[in-house]
Amino acid sequence: MTEQVSAAEPRYELDRDTTCVPRPDEPGVFATTLSPDWAFGMGLNGGYLLALAARALGASLTQPDPFTITAHYLSASQPGPAEVRTEVLRTGRTLSSGIARILQDGVPRVHVTGSYGDLAALDPEVRTSARPPELPSVEECAARSAFPASFRGAAFMDRSEQLLDPATAGWLTGRPSGRGEIRAWWRLADGRAPDPLALLLAVDALPPTGFDLGLRGWVPTVELTVHVRARPAPGWLRVALSTRNLAGGFLEEDGEVWDSAGRLVAQSRQLARAPRRRAG
Amino acid sequence: MTEQVSAAEPRYELDRDTTCVPRPDEPGVFATTLSPDWAFGMGLNGGYLLALAARALGASLTQPDPFTITAHYLSASQPGPAEVRTEVLRTGRTLSSGIARILQDGVPRVHVTGSYGDLAALDPEVRTSARPPELPSVEECAARSAFPASFRGAAFMDRSEQLLDPATAGWLTGRPSGRGEIRAWWRLADGRAPDPLALLLAVDALPPTGFDLGLRGWVPTVELTVHVRARPAPGWLRVALSTRNLAGGFLEEDGEVWDSAGRLVAQSRQLARAPRRRAG
Repeated sequence: MTEQVSAAEPRYELDRDTTCVPRPDEPGVFATTLSPDWAFGMGLNGGYLLALAARALGASLTQPDPFTITAHYLSASQPGPAEVRTEVLRTGRTLSSGIARILQDGVPRVHVTGSYGDLAALDPEVRTSARPPELPSVEECAARSAFPASFRGAAFMDRSEQLLDPATAGWLTGRPSGRGEIRAWWRLADGRAPDPLALLLAVDALPPTGFDLGLRGWVPTVELTVHVRARPAPGWLRVALSTRNLAGGFLEEDGEVWDSAGRLVAQSRQLARAPRRRAG
Repeated sequence: MTEQVSAAEPRYELDRDTTCVPRPDEPGVFATTLSPDWAFGMGLNGGYLLALAARALGASLTQPDPFTITAHYLSASQPGPAEVRTEVLRTGRTLSSGIARILQDGVPRVHVTGSYGDLAALDPEVRTSARPPELPSVEECAARSAFPASFRGAAFMDRSEQLLDPATAGWLTGRPSGRGEIRAWWRLADGRAPDPLALLLAVDALPPTGFDLGLRGWVPTVELTVHVRARPAPGWLRVALSTRNLAGGFLEEDGEVWDSAGRLVAQSRQLARAPRRRAG
């Protein structure tokens, strides 16, 4: 089942920039444009690309929400026209699975596999031992003005607000904690309420944990998996990232996203290449 | 590049039962047989199916080792003939990515996406804050004889040895800890040394964490992702599983595998459906 994903004049930036238009002659294939407005560091933000692919995949599957979704980043996406080719792997009563491939001029950029369900249909019971990160108030956290120029100038920083916990912001002043943790309040800058697509962005929206380990340089994502566990309540999200194992030139980055109602709404893990350069 | 994956008379069970024979007329397509010898609970073990697909994919890619690999379990695999269809997504200098699909009579069973590299070529540096689980000695852990009959009788239990930490084995005597943790020593029963394929098995080889949460019944895996971080040293592996968020009828299960040299060799996470039945 393929439905129209594009909306007339989307009100919000994320909806505008993930618009995918079905090709009438090719079922499951969508035309889209990768927007330069989500650039961060060396390229387009990986969470943005995942959200775009997830939206196209959701339009091809029976259920709306990505319960678990994995992206492999194959080559550097460029702002401009792109194609999303989806394939339904299985259609089930509660879960359906499929693939979405982002290509540019036939070159594969991102390969996404997801299993989708309906978050609204889930059993409301929660038995969690996870506790939300204790963050200082929004006012006490480090805002954009504290970030280095390479961050402040990134287009992505116009799309979202990230207010860093001072305990994980020591690297801004040359004193990384060494623990490999980054925590922040996060929301979209234009007032769009969080939803599962925004959660896919949130887990990849903060400075890399490598900065808190004293590493410099970008951390290219090889693979990113996100479990969306609940539909988030409106308001600020709390995002906590941590790295435990930096080894062999690679590191994992685990993420948790908590909503304003204190619920764990997403869990993520990525495998990334560690930067070669050391701080100092 | 497709090479011969089948070996003449493999010496070990895992190698024998993951043998994939390339179809000469169809590049990247392999004939295989899903062995009933890896049945566990309601079906074939998910780690076994992942290892089999990973082996076929490794034969289709330039690099040998799955650095990050994700399986979506689409329908119940049955012992018997199957086909593995691989597709190369990208070939790179240090990492290559591809897909492997296990099908039976044309029905998709498992869909696997992986990015492969060469573990032997990695920077030897390790900067990890992760600590291995503290397990009692092999002699002090709960062996197969302590398991309920439904476990003891599983074919999988003939293939591997799992010695449970008594601290996470309370459910065997009706006293689950409620923490959602399972820890064990683990190895293949026939003396085969661990390697990346065995690690894909190890992360899905223990009783589900749900048992330690007081849940009964099987926990069908929706999706399983494994990061293989190093080639394991010979000997026993230590496997630690934990669940923090049981909510909405789903739970995540995080896994770590440590080798005999004290190195974190694999990290895993799966999303699974929680069983409906409560213990008691």
